[in-house]
Amino acid sequence: MSGLFERHRPTVEAALQATVTRDFWSAYPEVPSGKIYGETAKDDGLAAYTARLGKTFVLADHPAEGSVGAEVSPFGPPLGVTYPAASVDMLIMASRAAAPQWAAASPQVRTGVCLEVLARLNARSFEMANAVMHTTGQAFGMAFQAGGPHAQDRGLEAVTYAYAEMTRTPAQATWTKPQGKGAPIVMEKHWCVVPRGVSLVIGCNTFPTWNSYPGLFASLATGNTIIVKPHPAAILPLAITVEIIRQVLVEEGFAADIVLLAADAPGSEITKDLVQHPAVAIVDYTGSNSFGTWVRGNAGTADVYTEEAGVNSIVIGSTDDFAGMCSNIAFSLSLYSGQMCTAPQNIFVPRGGVDTNEGHKSFDEIAIGIAKAVDGLLADPARGAGVCGAIANPATLSRIAEARSLGHIVRESAPIEGLDDARTATPLILAVDAADTDAFDEERFGPIAFVVAVDDVTDGVDRAADLAERKGAITAALYETDEGKILAAADRFATAGVNLSVNLTGGIYVNQSAAFSDFHVTGANPAGNASLTDAAFVANRFRVVMWRRPVAA
Amino acid sequence: MSGLFERHRPTVEAALQATVTRDFWSAYPEVPSGKIYGETAKDDGLAAYTARLGKTFVLADHPAEGSVGAEVSPFGPPLGVTYPAASVDMLIMASRAAAPQWAAASPQVRTGVCLEVLARLNARSFEMANAVMHTTGQAFGMAFQAGGPHAQDRGLEAVTYAYAEMTRTPAQATWTKPQGKGAPIVMEKHWCVVPRGVSLVIGCNTFPTWNSYPGLFASLATGNTIIVKPHPAAILPLAITVEIIRQVLVEEGFAADIVLLAADAPGSEITKDLVQHPAVAIVDYTGSNSFGTWVRGNAGTADVYTEEAGVNSIVIGSTDDFAGMCSNIAFSLSLYSGQMCTAPQNIFVPRGGVDTNEGHKSFDEIAIGIAKAVDGLLADPARGAGVCGAIANPATLSRIAEARSLGHIVRESAPIEGLDDARTATPLILAVDAADTDAFDEERFGPIAFVVAVDDVTDGVDRAADLAERKGAITAALYETDEGKILAAADRFATAGVNLSVNLTGGIYVNQSAAFSDFHVTGANPAGNASLTDAAFVANRFRVVMWRRPVAA
Repeated sequence: MSGLFERHRPTVEAALQATVTRDFWSAYPEVPSGKIYGETAKDDGLAAYTARLGKTFVLADHPAEGSVGAEVSPFGPPLGVTYPAASVDMLIMASRAAAPQWAAASPQVRTGVCLEVLARLNARSFEMANAVMHTTGQAFGMAFQAGGPHAQDRGLEAVTYAYAEMTRTPAQATWTKPQGKGAPIVMEKHWCVVPRGVSLVIGCNTFPTWNSYPGLFASLATGNTIIVKPHPAAILPLAITVEIIRQVLVEEGFAADIVLLAADAPGSEITKDLVQHPAVAIVDYTGSNSFGTWVRGNAGTADVYTEEAGVNSIVIGSTDDFAGMCSNIAFSLSLYSGQMCTAPQNIFVPRGGVDTNEGHKSFDEIAIGIAKAVDGLLADPARGAGVCGAIANPATLSRIAEARSLGHIVRESAPIEGLDDARTATPLILAVDAADTDAFDEERFGPIAFVVAVDDVTDGVDRAADLAERKGAITAALYETDEGKILAAADRFATAGVNLSVNLTGGIYVNQSAAFSDFHVTGANPAGNASLTDAAFVANRFRVVMWRRPVAA
Repeated sequence: MSGLFERHRPTVEAALQATVTRDFWSAYPEVPSGKIYGETAKDDGLAAYTARLGKTFVLADHPAEGSVGAEVSPFGPPLGVTYPAASVDMLIMASRAAAPQWAAASPQVRTGVCLEVLARLNARSFEMANAVMHTTGQAFGMAFQAGGPHAQDRGLEAVTYAYAEMTRTPAQATWTKPQGKGAPIVMEKHWCVVPRGVSLVIGCNTFPTWNSYPGLFASLATGNTIIVKPHPAAILPLAITVEIIRQVLVEEGFAADIVLLAADAPGSEITKDLVQHPAVAIVDYTGSNSFGTWVRGNAGTADVYTEEAGVNSIVIGSTDDFAGMCSNIAFSLSLYSGQMCTAPQNIFVPRGGVDTNEGHKSFDEIAIGIAKAVDGLLADPARGAGVCGAIANPATLSRIAEARSLGHIVRESAPIEGLDDARTATPLILAVDAADTDAFDEERFGPIAFVVAVDDVTDGVDRAADLAERKGAITAALYETDEGKILAAADRFATAGVNLSVNLTGGIYVNQSAAFSDFHVTGANPAGNASLTDAAFVANRFRVVMWRRPVAA
């Protein structure tokens, strides 16, 4: 049964190397091209997605006592897909029943299964792109990348770290202890990897695959059984994922129930009952700080890994590319209408303005420069739709409306032309003073940004880092030409546990985090207690147990 | 300031290799010989210990608002040593004040400091042996090994894993992402290790150094500041440790308060206030399950690593060395009067007896065989004293008295002759049936053992493993000549998260766990949630934070 591991060994070995060098590396092409994925892949993916609509999603032999499903595309139509619904007790019982067989499989066999699953997910990236697009509101191109290859890369990264950790201790060794002039004591020792139990993966609405795959694949590779609990508004991408995993498991002679889907209905979520169940040994959670706090406080003895939320900041001190800076920031604010956990919210700008390659720019000129760059980026409606996509949650529109009174409006939010059935909104940009903390001192999820007047770059960095320490932050960006100030800011943001991007002006954005190079979330501030993916994320998902005996003389 | 790292680099490199091969390896000689430690080392150590008695233990510049200390040697006399006492707020404030400097030191510098501390601790192993002996009741030879070199090895092991984890991600890398026919995107990336905060190490009475060093050195190497909270009955060994660490820190230009001693008085312990303090980010705890449960439940967002307690078992199925088995078990029961967390309590023996190289032996013959082996081992009072040592806690004597009524007495416990001022007790051995679960189904800490009649070896293994799953267990032992039954038992104990020793008859005992080869505690049953020392024990003690910027074309 280790044929899959051998088939995918080159990928594992390249991935192991990538975690060490941290140069660019990806196993799954991010370009949605027919030349890579097959000339008919795009049409096939759309057809596969369309064929799901209005139907029952069949997961062969999955426990069920009914069905649920109420997804509605942020681009308009309801999906009409229903999924098997099972009680918490049914899910736990089925998960535990499947556990011994999976625990007994070797790390290589389990790693091989994970790699095969990832390869099949990759081949179905176009189908997944449609599923992600119509559950999250991401534009197609982003849904393809973030929901497909980039999520697969994050899954592979987790499997890679898990494989490295599981194989760090040998399966067997001989221990020879000298005894002076006497014969040495010689022992044979055997170690095995023992999983923790049932692993619960709680998905989010906006990145159902990207944020779930690391925990899912880390737990699966380390021998745990998995219950995938999708957000009720974004079930389909994880249902497809579970379907593929169950297919591979069965093909390899394992019980399908090693991975289960815990679909539920909005307002009748079973998440809390799952989190509190004593059989659940691991919880991976992506979502709000408030529910994250509940999960961390109520998971009993389970290990909990969270990505929660925070307030991300940009600090502007000076720049030698004013236009590049403005258009880079504009893209970061606009991409997926600010619904990325990595999107910036607060832009700290010195009250007296900053020096640029276009001369000194006042605070207002900078705010307007960014606003105009957003206007330019989104001027063409098709391009605007491709950048912004749609709004996942209706509450985000209310939040934008409420935010309008919080400061001086530099740029109005507006719907995107041509997406008439969709829920859309371009970035709202407000100018405030650092004293107006009520406005910008908390997360306002969605396309809402504040340009905040501060004393100088140091003041801005301090405020941004302090906010990260109090409320969490996943990203920070700095524009500064003075090397000393850059290094000082890097130190300050490091202390606050925030990954910092400096002087981004080209085709790379503060929102982006690349598997195998950029750790996502540090675990060092309230935006999450774990990092995707480091050794700490995987090493506790299993235990090592030994038996030993003397070697006969 | 990386001179210490260079000086100790060969030790680090050998230790790194040892964690991979898991063959025997030790940096610190376990033989208390003048040829190794210097001809006057033994006398010097005793003199250094004696000079402490009846005096104030001076920790230069340590925060204090009074003094505490009420240690009494289990061998008789009070120590009369008093230590600086500081409030929780004073300790936390001093610890936080020292933090930025230590966090800013490189992993190499911090590792070098730890290695130098361990080398100095090693040189003072005779002094430490006396301190451990007269706070724990361990006989001198064991106090030397377990309190000195073996504890130092465990400390080094933790530093080694910490160093490996901290240096797994490079400090810097270049990331080059191809852009088709366009110029690639090139970024420089910088990663740094960020500690978690204040690390609290809660020591125990019986192994103040061995059980504290892994957490202490893992947290210290990863850049956290440390508050060492000794058991009020065993302060001196950790006070000496803190003294040495502070000396090395100051010599290297660091603040002494990076490591603090939180001495307190019996009945006025400050442990709970420390555990609950929001500044405490890491807690290492060794002690009872009941207080362990409290610590795990009340540490807030701190990561908690525990070694608690359990019920260790031996299962006898058959043996080809009956005498060797009995004497091996006898030693395991007698060593430090059963006060090791690894000591066996329950010996499961088939009701119908077992086959041995001396023919079939009945249940009673096996119980008596073990009892006689204990008698033989302890017949010479000097040898008995050297094996059993003294009883750390008076409550243990009461527990022995209460246990006498729990079964048929196969061997009476008795004081050890010649140690008239000491609190001593040899093993009490009781015979019970598997149905008498009230007797043996819980930990009865101290020299109390039950020979439990079961159906057969499989029944014995099941009961031992089931007990481990419910109440915890750190060790298990099996005597069995059938290879199939050995492998089945290994699987069953692995599922229960218990390290198993098979057919020990010579000079190695189930109680013993060797650094760099045997993991101590698995974390997979209620006897503890962590393992000494694996990657999971160290990887969460720090975070990795990045900054990145485009490389100019």
